[in-house]
Amino acid sequence: MPSAQPTAYPSTDRTVPTRSRERASYDRELVHAVLDEGYLCHLGFLRDGAPVVLPTLYARVGERLYVHGSTGSRPLRGAGAAPGLAVCLTVTHLDGLVLARSAFHHSVNYRSVVVHGTAFQVTDPEERSLALDAIVEQVMPGRADDSRRANAKELAATAVIRLDLLEVSAKVRSGGPNDEPEDLELPYWTGVLPVARTYGTPIPADDLAPSIALPGYLSGE
Amino acid sequence: MPSAQPTAYPSTDRTVPTRSRERASYDRELVHAVLDEGYLCHLGFLRDGAPVVLPTLYARVGERLYVHGSTGSRPLRGAGAAPGLAVCLTVTHLDGLVLARSAFHHSVNYRSVVVHGTAFQVTDPEERSLALDAIVEQVMPGRADDSRRANAKELAATAVIRLDLLEVSAKVRSGGPNDEPEDLELPYWTGVLPVARTYGTPIPADDLAPSIALPGYLSGE
Repeated sequence: MPSAQPTAYPSTDRTVPTRSRERASYDRELVHAVLDEGYLCHLGFLRDGAPVVLPTLYARVGERLYVHGSTGSRPLRGAGAAPGLAVCLTVTHLDGLVLARSAFHHSVNYRSVVVHGTAFQVTDPEERSLALDAIVEQVMPGRADDSRRANAKELAATAVIRLDLLEVSAKVRSGGPNDEPEDLELPYWTGVLPVARTYGTPIPADDLAPSIALPGYLSGE
Repeated sequence: MPSAQPTAYPSTDRTVPTRSRERASYDRELVHAVLDEGYLCHLGFLRDGAPVVLPTLYARVGERLYVHGSTGSRPLRGAGAAPGLAVCLTVTHLDGLVLARSAFHHSVNYRSVVVHGTAFQVTDPEERSLALDAIVEQVMPGRADDSRRANAKELAATAVIRLDLLEVSAKVRSGGPNDEPEDLELPYWTGVLPVARTYGTPIPADDLAPSIALPGYLSGE
């Protein structure tokens, strides 16, 4: 499949930023890498003509993104309607705080992906199962096989929507501050404070049987 | 000022969720606490009738949120137009991955705030300065006084928009998994994997003079 795909997404009016164009990329591998490192996105859609942005989980499967939720949730109902739901799905990894000598040149290091498109409800049972597994696996690789899969009642209560990767851009800022030459002698500390998402020690549920050991995907073994 | 304010934001059609209403809160203190812990939001707005979601920095000053950017950026230009810009500003803190015995009851612990409203450009020079300082301070308390403030040219290139906290809700999920009674004997590890944003060792810029020590707000002293 990869050999048949161009290495970059086409750039369009809405994926070319007005600012900091040098930070934008349409490279497929970069887009995939940013998406694959995360699992929490911010999904934007319209409700009564106004924008709404909600945090939600996602998974990437090839050139498709999946999001799930209750069949009663508003965006997912919208995606079930005939023309689909216009959405913007954004994933952001914050990598560092860039402390320049001037307030103006303060910045953050980050990698983000913005996907524009139309989301549709997935109705095919096989694709729905695949998508739900993928969301569990995106958050915690190894977990889909190490938990009880959804039964018929749970599947009926779960909506799955799909957004194809067609109109996509990544944006990356990395490296140190870019101060003005005339500021270089100012007496302020300057550099980058790295930021990362980290995980603590797993907390077993109160009712976990003591005989059940911590799985390898949680112990890092 | 606090004594004159009700302790909760009014709930409206669009701040009452269709799902998991028990997780929603309009408590002013909670909303402020969630906003104050962060500095990166996802800002949703419309462009040519379609939703756009972009990551950006923000600051809270009392009942106002400020966002800044280049005067050339699209959302900020929109906020400068007469009726303002309809936006949704969302802040999310991910606190844990909730691994239930069933895939269906997998969840995440989080605290989020969603603000709906109309953003306006700030033109008053004093409010603009205050907002720009506040954004630097929101990201790194102590830094506004320890960097060069914006000069006239930089101020002219910077747009500041304001969004008042009028239509606001918080949503919180905490605690362990909620498995079905019939799943309690399943042989899967269950519990919570804590997630946090953490900071690494500050990396000085290549051209930092060795005589400039790490400031207290970075060394934690």
